[in-house]
Amino acid sequence: MSFKLKILGANSATPAYGRHHTAQLLSTGNKHFLIDCGEGTQERLNQFNVSVLRINHIFISHLHGDHYLGLMGMLFTMHLLKRTADLHIYGQRGLEEIILTQLRYSESVLNYDIHFRELDPERSEKIMEDRTLEVTTIPLSHRIPCSGFIFREKTKQIRLNKEKLPTDISLTAIGQLKRGEDVTDANGKVIYKNKDLTLPHRKACSYAFCSDTRFDERIIPHVKNVDLLYHEATFLEEKRQWAELTFHSTTQDAAKIARQAGAGQLVIGHYSARYKDLTPFLEEAQQVFPNTILAKEGGIIEISDSP
Amino acid sequence: MSFKLKILGANSATPAYGRHHTAQLLSTGNKHFLIDCGEGTQERLNQFNVSVLRINHIFISHLHGDHYLGLMGMLFTMHLLKRTADLHIYGQRGLEEIILTQLRYSESVLNYDIHFRELDPERSEKIMEDRTLEVTTIPLSHRIPCSGFIFREKTKQIRLNKEKLPTDISLTAIGQLKRGEDVTDANGKVIYKNKDLTLPHRKACSYAFCSDTRFDERIIPHVKNVDLLYHEATFLEEKRQWAELTFHSTTQDAAKIARQAGAGQLVIGHYSARYKDLTPFLEEAQQVFPNTILAKEGGIIEISDSP
Repeated sequence: MSFKLKILGANSATPAYGRHHTAQLLSTGNKHFLIDCGEGTQERLNQFNVSVLRINHIFISHLHGDHYLGLMGMLFTMHLLKRTADLHIYGQRGLEEIILTQLRYSESVLNYDIHFRELDPERSEKIMEDRTLEVTTIPLSHRIPCSGFIFREKTKQIRLNKEKLPTDISLTAIGQLKRGEDVTDANGKVIYKNKDLTLPHRKACSYAFCSDTRFDERIIPHVKNVDLLYHEATFLEEKRQWAELTFHSTTQDAAKIARQAGAGQLVIGHYSARYKDLTPFLEEAQQVFPNTILAKEGGIIEISDSP
Repeated sequence: MSFKLKILGANSATPAYGRHHTAQLLSTGNKHFLIDCGEGTQERLNQFNVSVLRINHIFISHLHGDHYLGLMGMLFTMHLLKRTADLHIYGQRGLEEIILTQLRYSESVLNYDIHFRELDPERSEKIMEDRTLEVTTIPLSHRIPCSGFIFREKTKQIRLNKEKLPTDISLTAIGQLKRGEDVTDANGKVIYKNKDLTLPHRKACSYAFCSDTRFDERIIPHVKNVDLLYHEATFLEEKRQWAELTFHSTTQDAAKIARQAGAGQLVIGHYSARYKDLTPFLEEAQQVFPNTILAKEGGIIEISDSP
């Protein structure tokens, strides 16, 4: 399955120029993962015709307001829309308390159950896994505990090419094909080559989300060879010192991580409200890592699984 | 001073048809009072070119999300905009805990001080007073503790008409004029009539905010003769039973309160997301109280102090 990443918000702490706080929707097949949830995220989803009820997993990187303040309103909306499916929320220590405190004072009993998973910001851990995909955290380097997330499809099964498969093929031979082997007879002689009876191998897609963080080379091994890397770039190079002070990254910090990790593509975002024109962001990052694009609200970035 | 009420949001629990959660800005002179603060209120203020830094007093009626979830983001924005002036927040028990919990986990120390005033939802109390104005709570009848607010200008001093004042008038005579008396000589004979030397008396404006609440006649004495009454009208008459079940009001509930209180004008809002067309709201309410208007986002309602 391909991945589709929808940008719901790509600005940093202050909304500006029609740009909103961080939120992204990663979709693969009928699964929809919400990554961060700044204020007004539910309104953006509505605007882009995505029902909040399709989201079963929400990943919150850290507890700065611009990354989670839209969550509480979304939980209430899910309740009002009569959600009954379990909801899984992954976040730093404190997120559960923040949510439960507000549910308590509003005297709300939601129609659905929330399963909280507290992240350990100090280490990488697998926090979600299903039949086709797993999600692992990336320790980031920010002012407060903060985790990135990498979404990896599992290695895909070899698919038989039913049109070319001989009708009399044995179960033993099918087993050989599915293991990626050629089909052999009792003497080990190749009867069919694997590639002649199977479909081209589909790529297992991967996406990494790294925000907020200062430049930190320890991120690189976690995102090695990822298809698409989102790395925050709050500032242009001219504000390098300010980036360091505030534990944020510049354009070229993000690009260096992408280059050293051998990422397929880099998407940058989390722009400071001081910048109206984002063209210099792209130019600066592309000097270091040419295959860079800008996160733009409403935009969709696709990671194809075509071989 | 006249009052200007700016509607920032007038929908109930779910945003719909471009209508947002409850928030209003009441302005008089250079004072700006924010009443309720649904998600995205800061964006609406921005859209209407009102700086959040102009707000020094925030009144939150109750702790349902659609009435306060925009507050935390606004507090962070005030901090980022380098606010230093004290901020006063009036709200139910729990609001302070909700705010402090989130400040704690974000490890934020704001540049400014917040003064919390916990409301007593069971009784009417004066919660704010300055030289020209006072704010008193109104106990409302909702599912959770909820208070309305009435903003009353203090009775205004009589203003002398300097153009008509004789140059040789005595301080004693000025005292008489300012007390509303005619100027008399030692024998009690009228020398100048008060109205000839003073300007027309300006009206002391008043505004009452009642949301959320079911129909409750105990509200009436609190809002007696108010110039402008905002009373929630979540539902049309057809959903009267649903209004009662959810502790909300219908159009005619709101209109009856306005009529019985002798309000100057009624503005209704807090519309349920089930309604796209609001015309029937106006029609139903006007059957009971003709001087009714609809709360519309971006709209300004003026209470004039002209005599």
